[in-house]
Amino acid sequence: MNARHPRHSHLPSTAIVREVGLRDGLQSIATILPTDLKCEWIRVAHAAGQREIEVGSFVPARLLPQLADTAELLAFARTLPGLFASVLVPNLRGADAAIAGKADLMIVPLSASHAHSLANLRKTPDDVVAEVARIRAARDAAGSKALIEGGVGTAFGCTIQGRVEKSEVLRLMQALLDAGADRVSLADTVGYADPAMVEDLFEAAVKIAGDRFWCGHFHDTRGLGLANVYAALQVGVRRFDACLAGIGGCPHAPGASGNVSTEDLAYMLGSMGIATGIDIARLLALRARVAGWLGGETLHGALWQAGLPKTFEAEATAV
Amino acid sequence: MNARHPRHSHLPSTAIVREVGLRDGLQSIATILPTDLKCEWIRVAHAAGQREIEVGSFVPARLLPQLADTAELLAFARTLPGLFASVLVPNLRGADAAIAGKADLMIVPLSASHAHSLANLRKTPDDVVAEVARIRAARDAAGSKALIEGGVGTAFGCTIQGRVEKSEVLRLMQALLDAGADRVSLADTVGYADPAMVEDLFEAAVKIAGDRFWCGHFHDTRGLGLANVYAALQVGVRRFDACLAGIGGCPHAPGASGNVSTEDLAYMLGSMGIATGIDIARLLALRARVAGWLGGETLHGALWQAGLPKTFEAEATAV
Repeated sequence: MNARHPRHSHLPSTAIVREVGLRDGLQSIATILPTDLKCEWIRVAHAAGQREIEVGSFVPARLLPQLADTAELLAFARTLPGLFASVLVPNLRGADAAIAGKADLMIVPLSASHAHSLANLRKTPDDVVAEVARIRAARDAAGSKALIEGGVGTAFGCTIQGRVEKSEVLRLMQALLDAGADRVSLADTVGYADPAMVEDLFEAAVKIAGDRFWCGHFHDTRGLGLANVYAALQVGVRRFDACLAGIGGCPHAPGASGNVSTEDLAYMLGSMGIATGIDIARLLALRARVAGWLGGETLHGALWQAGLPKTFEAEATAV
Repeated sequence: MNARHPRHSHLPSTAIVREVGLRDGLQSIATILPTDLKCEWIRVAHAAGQREIEVGSFVPARLLPQLADTAELLAFARTLPGLFASVLVPNLRGADAAIAGKADLMIVPLSASHAHSLANLRKTPDDVVAEVARIRAARDAAGSKALIEGGVGTAFGCTIQGRVEKSEVLRLMQALLDAGADRVSLADTVGYADPAMVEDLFEAAVKIAGDRFWCGHFHDTRGLGLANVYAALQVGVRRFDACLAGIGGCPHAPGASGNVSTEDLAYMLGSMGIATGIDIARLLALRARVAGWLGGETLHGALWQAGLPKTFEAEATAV
């Protein structure tokens, strides 16, 4: 525990950084990373202390060739002790693959923006809710223990329809729970959130979902990613998605950054005395390797350039 | 007022973004911007709604040739209606120039890190306090109305000595007030702060200085600049330094970013319904021009790439 910055009463003592670089990051860039390098990424992230990794997405390879090796990655991830492996599944077909591959958790994305949902998923949000019910039935019928997470995206607005009502976001979140989702999450898919909006919406969401509220997913598109994380921490959220080197970008804003970067987030949490279990020095070494593998891709994040402060106490991050 | 994101009770209704790019920004980069372009910067920033600008520093030109035209800039700034012009003054000699030039405010920097103070200012922190007493006497003797701001830097640690004790920061802040400073501020000179540290220290500082607590100065060296601003807002701080395009860098971390970027900060505040008086579209247009003037310099900030969200309500920023 960091003696200098006593934990604030409103901050948790531990938090989890879920690595989504292999899914949300890699699906958004042109480079196709070979399977052996992805396995190496997962192996070293695990060695650096990361315990939750989204390894890929069970979508048709013709749609996302970058993620065609998700089944192999899931099999590899399951060999690492204590690693909680998740995959994105857009539908029942994907869920069947996740169940067969013994994923620990499957994330079903729902877009609260009807326009965005139709454009991206070719379904209405309520169609996705119905699909979650089918996934739940299939999961239970298979005797699988894979958790189902309903992830409500465009929760703060969207680039197509603009505003997304808070009441609609919360209605869909409740509908996902009612349909059988074990967990629900909120995502600022396009980087429209500010910290006040986050406190407002996440507070209401946690009130509804309680312990089933799982994760905050923030993009750093307009530089507010970590401020939004800090706001979510205030209302009890303890798990955040992040991409190593902030890879991913935003398809609607060329050159703009994607998810919050894993290393900057782990640093912020660790500096505040919130244990994540992550060894940041090892994470930065991994970042350097991944940066090499990704050649000309635009990367993000600040810590890798500046390094850890002289005052940073590494033991603060140990769980 | 932004109807969608009602102000939180713990957030202020207005805040001030003080532009320090012409001082903290330009002093840290190699490019020497011609005086006419600096005047254009000040003129357009004022037209975009900025009402507080630090125009330069009264230090010997041989030390900072980038800022040799501070007297001319101050004279120009005084022609713009409602513009509150500040300058940095390291000592009584600088203060004499600021008083002669009719600055509205002179900022006297003090480094709470003794090692940093000796290395950068060649004085102990308490020597600086004594100098502030002399500046106050000179100001009063001249019948000047220029306010004196004591800015306590390296308030969260320093790259030379590492830790800086909170008690020492607060002692020096009190000493500055006792010596005659009208205002006091805290600066995270090297980007060591995290939001929990900010809430902790700024809360104590505001308790001591009350309305005389003036400004938070955050560097984005490790990506936490805006999160730190959000934390300071929680404890009642309403004025923040920022550099257009985040220029400035950190001499101890090549390539790392400098102050929080004016445009991203103005966006965060405006998005939360906190009025700053700044027209962000005009500010982004100015950023593009300044970026052109600064040629090969490394710039920072996210908003300029992504643009304002479709949901952003411009009227929210009007005072």
